[in-house]
Amino acid sequence: MLNFNFYNPTRILFGAGKIAEISQFVPQDARVLVLYGGGSARSTGTLAEVLAALGERTVFEFGGIEPNPSYETLSRAVDMARAERIDYLLAVGGGSVLDGSKFVAAAVPFEGDTWSILEKRGSNITRALPMGAVLTLPATGSEMNSGGVVTRKATHAKLAFSSPLCFPQFSVLDPTKTYTLPPRQIANGLVDAFVHTMEQYLTYPVNGLAQDRFAEGLLQTLIELAPRAMQEGEPDYDNRANLMWTATLALNGLIGAGVPQDWATHMIGHELTALYGIDHARTLAIVLPQVMQARREAKREKLLQYAARVWQITEGSDDERIDAAIARTAQFFESVGIPTRLSAYQLGGEAVDAVVKALTEHGMVKLGEQRAITPEVSRAILEAAL
Amino acid sequence: MLNFNFYNPTRILFGAGKIAEISQFVPQDARVLVLYGGGSARSTGTLAEVLAALGERTVFEFGGIEPNPSYETLSRAVDMARAERIDYLLAVGGGSVLDGSKFVAAAVPFEGDTWSILEKRGSNITRALPMGAVLTLPATGSEMNSGGVVTRKATHAKLAFSSPLCFPQFSVLDPTKTYTLPPRQIANGLVDAFVHTMEQYLTYPVNGLAQDRFAEGLLQTLIELAPRAMQEGEPDYDNRANLMWTATLALNGLIGAGVPQDWATHMIGHELTALYGIDHARTLAIVLPQVMQARREAKREKLLQYAARVWQITEGSDDERIDAAIARTAQFFESVGIPTRLSAYQLGGEAVDAVVKALTEHGMVKLGEQRAITPEVSRAILEAAL
Repeated sequence: MLNFNFYNPTRILFGAGKIAEISQFVPQDARVLVLYGGGSARSTGTLAEVLAALGERTVFEFGGIEPNPSYETLSRAVDMARAERIDYLLAVGGGSVLDGSKFVAAAVPFEGDTWSILEKRGSNITRALPMGAVLTLPATGSEMNSGGVVTRKATHAKLAFSSPLCFPQFSVLDPTKTYTLPPRQIANGLVDAFVHTMEQYLTYPVNGLAQDRFAEGLLQTLIELAPRAMQEGEPDYDNRANLMWTATLALNGLIGAGVPQDWATHMIGHELTALYGIDHARTLAIVLPQVMQARREAKREKLLQYAARVWQITEGSDDERIDAAIARTAQFFESVGIPTRLSAYQLGGEAVDAVVKALTEHGMVKLGEQRAITPEVSRAILEAAL
Repeated sequence: MLNFNFYNPTRILFGAGKIAEISQFVPQDARVLVLYGGGSARSTGTLAEVLAALGERTVFEFGGIEPNPSYETLSRAVDMARAERIDYLLAVGGGSVLDGSKFVAAAVPFEGDTWSILEKRGSNITRALPMGAVLTLPATGSEMNSGGVVTRKATHAKLAFSSPLCFPQFSVLDPTKTYTLPPRQIANGLVDAFVHTMEQYLTYPVNGLAQDRFAEGLLQTLIELAPRAMQEGEPDYDNRANLMWTATLALNGLIGAGVPQDWATHMIGHELTALYGIDHARTLAIVLPQVMQARREAKREKLLQYAARVWQITEGSDDERIDAAIARTAQFFESVGIPTRLSAYQLGGEAVDAVVKALTEHGMVKLGEQRAITPEVSRAILEAAL
């Protein structure tokens, strides 16, 4: 097992009706900025419920944080927070709103050009406003981690940052708040959580027995959950609860503590989103199977373990079992309606060129747990995904 | 899934050499009381390493915290901490030292009779000294939770308490610090972690998919680890690391969040320790198999799931599979040299009477997730364990 530090102070308030409890955790005299995305926070009544829970506190609102939140939009929120002397942020939405709010939390007290927070991946964050979150879309895990991803529209740069100062102080996970999500978002959540888990699992063995079992448990949960969640008539509380908690556990630092991590799929996927606007999870479904294929020798032992424990594949030669496990992975994504080919998005060889160019420009030239995914390997991965 | 709040702010510093990092987390001007147990903290060099890491800080020492730490001993530590104006505690040892230090942390600033902290199970704790921990014995999970158990020698009362103010701020988990442990302690750690997991798993299903998978993963890890850990020639780093991290995960609140919990085995076991001085883990090994047997109807669905997923028992009728799973559980304890019968400790019917009397006196009259284990059921459980 590798050495590690694990620290996650976010308080989770899980279940129907939990929004009412946030009053216990936001200071009574706080000047609160509530940040949200499109109109759904308001139309579903979640925003009203949050405002009711905040009671007599001084509250401002900032709506319109877009999917793949932009530096440009968030900078307006920073200006507003500074102007109104905001001292507490409350993010209401999915991963984009939460990621964006973390950036705002760090940027408000930041001295100098706030873009440098992203250029330095958050390492220059020394203060941040306290924040809480009300999650409405299970997928990214942002509700219980200290990182975020922000895009600069002007340059199509999509950059990740993190800081221990950016953990939400609390996050409300109320499964009923997901009831209005379209099936596309449920599918995205399933795939996002699946790939988050794989990035921390499918590397090389270091004898992290509990970490492996936990990761395999999350993957098995998502596989068990997917058909139920995609074929609901009415929204089912337990399905939504399980998706929400599983997605949180997939990226709260726990399963990755003490084991190698990959993240090449994410880095390549981020460029596809930045260039072509494909949903984050959908980019992952395109890239992951081909990363597994391209890195099958380096990942051999874990691929065999994955085949046996997650998919119960026990027949055939080592290579046949690996092939079957990769095929089952792609089939899983397709089973929830998410394509695994660039061609499904009308993208061809020119997209491969553009993504490889962007990766190179962004310094993403030695990706993966072995730092072996050079731009040439990324090209091969993308070409195999055409 | 049940509603839950989850909060665990303890920072884990995991791996060989991590004691050196504690200097980052103890205030430079702290007046530190280092608490430890018998002589092993000193003789193994761990105490010296801790003192070196604390550098120029003002440090006092309090040794002699015994297994099943006593209110009497801990009260002397409270007196010392008050006299020396201690403002930071550092516990160096196993679960007993950590549990005891949490009590000291709460008792030092407490106004009034400190025994009331235990009588009220910690609900009256409003302040506590900050504390850190250096774990030397993996078993109890105390390093990453907010609870403890303290015994009053005079009355044989063994009482649990907890408070969110009693989480260690940090805990160092250095697997090399377990190298001097005798096999008996390794066996106790394996069984303790196993039963902690079972208390939060083997109840009734509430569709907590990830919680079940995580619990099953910890049980499978302990089963895989046990023969390796018990048959080491030289201490093996990865074995110790896996035992340490698995034991922590078994009782840090995570696997029990959102699911019913039992704890009857612990409550009955505590009385066996208080009356007869049997190691905590060893009492659990006596009680758990008979709790499973006595509650097999109420626990039926989870027993079948446990049989299939943890022990891969798939042949036979439902009852045969349940019988096999209970038998395998007892065999697992016996396989690490821990008896599952009271007779192994030369205890007979008079012990049954004494434990049932103690349970009744301590209000432990409706135990288990269904509150169905009355003193009569406890008697039947103990008689079956003779």
